[in-house]
Amino acid sequence: MKFTHFNEQNKPTMVDVSIKEPTLRIALAQAVVKLSKQAYLAVKEGTVKKGDVLAVASVAGIMGAKQTPHLIPMCHPLNLDQINIDFELNDEDNTIRVISTAKITAKTGVEMESLCACSIAALTIYDMCKSIDKSIEITDIYLLKKSGGKSGEFERKT
Amino acid sequence: MKFTHFNEQNKPTMVDVSIKEPTLRIALAQAVVKLSKQAYLAVKEGTVKKGDVLAVASVAGIMGAKQTPHLIPMCHPLNLDQINIDFELNDEDNTIRVISTAKITAKTGVEMESLCACSIAALTIYDMCKSIDKSIEITDIYLLKKSGGKSGEFERKT
Amino acid sequence: MKFTHFNEQNKPTMVDVSIKEPTLRIALAQAVVKLSKQAYLAVKEGTVKKGDVLAVASVAGIMGAKQTPHLIPMCHPLNLDQINIDFELNDEDNTIRVISTAKITAKTGVEMESLCACSIAALTIYDMCKSIDKSIEITDIYLLKKSGGKSGEFERKT
Amino acid sequence: MKFTHFNEQNKPTMVDVSIKEPTLRIALAQAVVKLSKQAYLAVKEGTVKKGDVLAVASVAGIMGAKQTPHLIPMCHPLNLDQINIDFELNDEDNTIRVISTAKITAKTGVEMESLCACSIAALTIYDMCKSIDKSIEITDIYLLKKSGGKSGEFERKT
Amino acid sequence: MKFTHFNEQNKPTMVDVSIKEPTLRIALAQAVVKLSKQAYLAVKEGTVKKGDVLAVASVAGIMGAKQTPHLIPMCHPLNLDQINIDFELNDEDNTIRVISTAKITAKTGVEMESLCACSIAALTIYDMCKSIDKSIEITDIYLLKKSGGKSGEFERKT
Amino acid sequence: MKFTHFNEQNKPTMVDVSIKEPTLRIALAQAVVKLSKQAYLAVKEGTVKKGDVLAVASVAGIMGAKQTPHLIPMCHPLNLDQINIDFELNDEDNTIRVISTAKITAKTGVEMESLCACSIAALTIYDMCKSIDKSIEITDIYLLKKSGGKSGEFERKT
Repeated sequence: MKFTHFNEQNKPTMVDVSIKEPTLRIALAQAVVKLSKQAYLAVKEGTVKKGDVLAVASVAGIMGAKQTPHLIPMCHPLNLDQINIDFELNDEDNTIRVISTAKITAKTGVEMESLCACSIAALTIYDMCKSIDKSIEITDIYLLKKSGGKSGEFERKT
Repeated sequence: MKFTHFNEQNKPTMVDVSIKEPTLRIALAQAVVKLSKQAYLAVKEGTVKKGDVLAVASVAGIMGAKQTPHLIPMCHPLNLDQINIDFELNDEDNTIRVISTAKITAKTGVEMESLCACSIAALTIYDMCKSIDKSIEITDIYLLKKSGGKSGEFERKT
Repeated sequence: MKFTHFNEQNKPTMVDVSIKEPTLRIALAQAVVKLSKQAYLAVKEGTVKKGDVLAVASVAGIMGAKQTPHLIPMCHPLNLDQINIDFELNDEDNTIRVISTAKITAKTGVEMESLCACSIAALTIYDMCKSIDKSIEITDIYLLKKSGGKSGEFERKT
Repeated sequence: MKFTHFNEQNKPTMVDVSIKEPTLRIALAQAVVKLSKQAYLAVKEGTVKKGDVLAVASVAGIMGAKQTPHLIPMCHPLNLDQINIDFELNDEDNTIRVISTAKITAKTGVEMESLCACSIAALTIYDMCKSIDKSIEITDIYLLKKSGGKSGEFERKT
Repeated sequence: MKFTHFNEQNKPTMVDVSIKEPTLRIALAQAVVKLSKQAYLAVKEGTVKKGDVLAVASVAGIMGAKQTPHLIPMCHPLNLDQINIDFELNDEDNTIRVISTAKITAKTGVEMESLCACSIAALTIYDMCKSIDKSIEITDIYLLKKSGGKSGEFERKT
Repeated sequence: MKFTHFNEQNKPTMVDVSIKEPTLRIALAQAVVKLSKQAYLAVKEGTVKKGDVLAVASVAGIMGAKQTPHLIPMCHPLNLDQINIDFELNDEDNTIRVISTAKITAKTGVEMESLCACSIAALTIYDMCKSIDKSIEITDIYLLKKSGGKSGEFERKT
């Protein structure tokens, strides 16, 4: 098994995409934040009246997606066409599911941008709730779906 | 329940730490990367002969920790005294556990720096293995332990 | 009249603060965004139900303040103790006044951090309203007040 | 009135430009710096013999324009084709007018890049003159003209 | 002799490339690090068993190349298609030659990206060896070869 | 010979300086840019009337020094007290010697900040002259002198 991210000297390298054609690429990813009941309710109610944790998390996720090539060493710099973040609040287990969508017309995919977006949004929720709850957990970070590019469609089996 | 990160106008704010005294603070955090057998073995063997995924992940985690105040909106800028990343490879379930240690003498804690370090190291492992395995999952990101500061010692119950 | 920011070769230089003692410094600054009635009302109402422009502007201002040494060439890197942004909405002339407060214990002042915070918050309001109003104007950016440091107290005469 | 920068959940979002065609776009913007007589003359003369404040401001404005997507949260990352900054010195009222021109062939406009350029150039003049003059004011930041894109030509009425 | 990087006001400017057509461009550059025998051997052996200095230098060089437009003021932002770093270890004079290759399809060249990559990789080797050797020298940084663009092929005479 | 920048797992690590005391540290470093006669004279004369390459290089060097912890992976984030850049123009061999001075009161040294400053200033001179001269060479990058810290004074033998 050969990694694409190492060169002949076995040193890390950015993969050469110079001869590839740009195509539309979309990647959806997710992260889940597990909160205590108290912290979960503070976020849920806060979005209505006390201060909107999820708006801050959205901004952080969107800005974080734009930092992807400066965070993940072998990622190509890309000019994102869109990045959007949605939240699903689950009252039963006090979790917030962060779902990110990244779009681009480029020679290479946007999985990492989408994964960075939801990870950093989740870490931001963590940061803003940590004074209330020291046992927050971020979990289930993965790619949900991607399209475009040579490797074609991918959809995670649930 | 009042968040510390919103001001009287219910807008996000960076908490005022101007009257706090600097103390030594340490934070350990973790993230777990779940790989397919094939990707796991490629990482494990690669560290010996093909190209060292974990060295790249270490560098990314350390550099990412230094970007924390530019990723997590309400984090204070801090001059880290140390950041270290260790890896535990588990042959039984093909997982890599990333453990980060952050140290500082400052007015505020380094939990977020430590959490950013292990999250970004984990995302880097993901990036370098995604050509082999499209179903990688990052999970169990949480604080293991922290010391220093007014809120005192914290150790996660296992 | 000699600038402090040029050296003997008349080239720009970062002022030497190595022998200064750190003291608490506070700087308040402001910027004013002039909107059309329509855009002004969209922001005002949006903060309640459609999407909170001012929360995004707060986050941008706080993150922008942390970028000050990477934006303003001769600024010293500083670890802000606090940055806060308040908004005054004026129904009579459809203006939003952005007021930023920066605090630090350091060898040099935080005027530029405070000015960057309110400027970038104002530019963010501009960006989010520009699809509604192409004639937005940002005006009256100045220091309101500062304390700490050798040059002592300053308060702008109104 | 609906903002384009909020999604269905009323959270901030980067607008989807994936189906738009790239066209040439140009945006001119301005900012005005009001100085005391003394500071104004120091800048004016300094450009000749003591140290060139306006050269430093140009560099800051150009570099700041390139940081736009990392400063203004919902801005798309763009590869600027040009950014230029001109200065008009007005002896009558001791003001410096900063005029920025940004060009790009892209799916979305460069107003914010041009506005960031002149704002950061103006803040840099402020920084370099603040030891001489504590009452500097930055004012009249607005778009002068733009062309390209679906919304067509815009020229500010004077 | 007129510089292309100054405008009519003799202030620095980013050259206008808006009417140029994107073409494939490649640039090879190099830097040489001169070490003491002891430091040289530590790097050489370390790559095998103690810790891989050159892997860290590769990552730094690749990430540094992506920062070029934020380091070199008049550089255009560019989306690199590839960046690769190779090392030649010379036992006779204890030198490490760093060779970088940058590729892009763009309106302007990638010389500076390639030069930044090898310079920052060299500085990283310096940093990691400086506890062993305080007299390290970096030398012979230059462009080896470039292709693409109006000015055509260039190959340095040896 | 053991590197300080690798941990027990032989992965790169940021050295722990948490128990060290801050002391004043100064580091002088240099880089030399070798130009053709034509490019050298253009820089020399330009500083007087056509556009000041060296002012741009100074700004780039100062801003680059502030980016050091984000360029050199294992460097600690530091709040520089001063960074200054001087130039020596040598008519005999058409070289420009860039000399940088970095100062700080910190737990660790500023060699890398000083070396980044002169390297990036030199690369900026390269960038601005490359349309005139394709054979520019940057050479003799090294530490001239440092003081402060446990390892004490160092002065390079000439």
